[in-house]
Amino acid sequence: MDISKITSKEQAVGFLNQFDNFLFDCDGVIWSGNTLLPKTIEILTYLKMELHKNLIFVSNNSTKSREEYLKKFRKLGINFINKNEIFNSSFASAIYIEKILNVNKETDKVFVIGMRGIEGELREAGIKYIGGEDIRLDDKFSVEESEYFQNLDPSVKVVLAGLDLNINYHRLAIGLQYLLRPEVFFVSTNIDSTFPNGKFKLPGAGTMIKALETCSNRKSISCGKPNLNMMKSIIKEHNIDISRSVMVGDRLNTDIKFGKLGGLSTLLVLSGICSEEDVFSKDNDVVPNYYINKLGDLYELIHE
Amino acid sequence: MDISKITSKEQAVGFLNQFDNFLFDCDGVIWSGNTLLPKTIEILTYLKMELHKNLIFVSNNSTKSREEYLKKFRKLGINFINKNEIFNSSFASAIYIEKILNVNKETDKVFVIGMRGIEGELREAGIKYIGGEDIRLDDKFSVEESEYFQNLDPSVKVVLAGLDLNINYHRLAIGLQYLLRPEVFFVSTNIDSTFPNGKFKLPGAGTMIKALETCSNRKSISCGKPNLNMMKSIIKEHNIDISRSVMVGDRLNTDIKFGKLGGLSTLLVLSGICSEEDVFSKDNDVVPNYYINKLGDLYELIHE
Repeated sequence: MDISKITSKEQAVGFLNQFDNFLFDCDGVIWSGNTLLPKTIEILTYLKMELHKNLIFVSNNSTKSREEYLKKFRKLGINFINKNEIFNSSFASAIYIEKILNVNKETDKVFVIGMRGIEGELREAGIKYIGGEDIRLDDKFSVEESEYFQNLDPSVKVVLAGLDLNINYHRLAIGLQYLLRPEVFFVSTNIDSTFPNGKFKLPGAGTMIKALETCSNRKSISCGKPNLNMMKSIIKEHNIDISRSVMVGDRLNTDIKFGKLGGLSTLLVLSGICSEEDVFSKDNDVVPNYYINKLGDLYELIHE
Repeated sequence: MDISKITSKEQAVGFLNQFDNFLFDCDGVIWSGNTLLPKTIEILTYLKMELHKNLIFVSNNSTKSREEYLKKFRKLGINFINKNEIFNSSFASAIYIEKILNVNKETDKVFVIGMRGIEGELREAGIKYIGGEDIRLDDKFSVEESEYFQNLDPSVKVVLAGLDLNINYHRLAIGLQYLLRPEVFFVSTNIDSTFPNGKFKLPGAGTMIKALETCSNRKSISCGKPNLNMMKSIIKEHNIDISRSVMVGDRLNTDIKFGKLGGLSTLLVLSGICSEEDVFSKDNDVVPNYYINKLGDLYELIHE
């Protein structure tokens, strides 16, 4: 097992010298909830401004569009990131629908189960959609009274599902009607089964998607980590050399798996979900190349 | 493959002579939605009144209690059925929680994701419950504002989930909090992924249950067909001889599987979910002993 913990200045410098492209997960790496992790601004500034590295922020959170993500970065004091450095699962899904599924922007529509982050990215890509946060879908479902049910739209070519705090029977029932058409594509933003909310776990995108997969007896194509569709989009969009790229994340089964599947090097930070015990557990088969207590340690080691 | 299609008077008479006990699924066999299937009253009257057969109606529909089922039978003109001839999954679940899980009726509670049929059967069994159709769970979920979230109840010992037309993020999030306690049992009424509504399919109980199973990373114990818990309860309650019993249903993977697992003979009717192609598909490994276009054909064949 070839794995090193970065604990000295020499190791930190050697690590940074190997890579031009740094892909970062956000929650558990850059921030935890709404709090920035220590020395994050310093290391990001150093990487971008002094070393001129290419930074890409890769998140499975689809509830925000890249615009909204940018606002979060700015609110936390990170002002030197721009929109094209952010790659979240709603954006990845919009790209996938646009570039891979090649929907006709004049005539085709997407039925969305998800929130405004998804709607924002579809709008920006010029893709027509229905559903999403439409309040008519908040009404209790009845076959007779649902406008959506009574007017199923033949131009829907894709169902796109992600985390939806407005999920209800109405949305599931309409989603199912479209998924029963074999020609309709089924795309999901990501399949995380839960997400952390302070000390609680709440149902994640995977919960809604599994519900839809169960009633439709279909499998969705996931655009989030660790699915390689997302990696392919990033590589294409940023034209990066994977041999000079590293994926930094706090989850073995999404971030590190994603990096490894994509052929990148990987750095696990212990400031989020996974611990050192998880790495060396006999049940773990996803071993990062490097690990470190937190991202900011790279800055501290180099400047000590 | 030993399978016969019943198409002649001789076959129909031979079929009926073999059995004393007829277990019927309801939807797709007796009725479709709110419409009785042709010649159903005639065949049921003939079986019960003239041939003195034992009829048992076995349904995975948990949205109605047995009382409400009886009303539906009467509304459709079937007046000769009584409550103890009805065995649905909400009743089976209440029995399971009462007799197998042995909940303490004074101190324990069930958190219900499901409708008033479940609530009715739990009430009749004297089991305390929360959740279900409680309108506070219809509110949009927020950690801070949810009374259910802010007052998680330590006396909840079981989560019981079934088809819930009121399913929403709020109910999923509260269900998850209870399921994250390893000592809480996870029971489901049935796992049908869809149910027919006229010419449409709508998401079934299995949709909600898979959602809960996904976020909690747990498996539920199902009390509906094809689970043998239900068959054991029926055999015990009605003291039937399985060698003289036949299960009649419209679904291979629930009704027919249920009959076969229980050691009964099986009759598939093609008036519901499954078609002749499904029976002979190479993916199908659940082959009924008999099949017929619809239940009423037995009457027509015998009286032609």
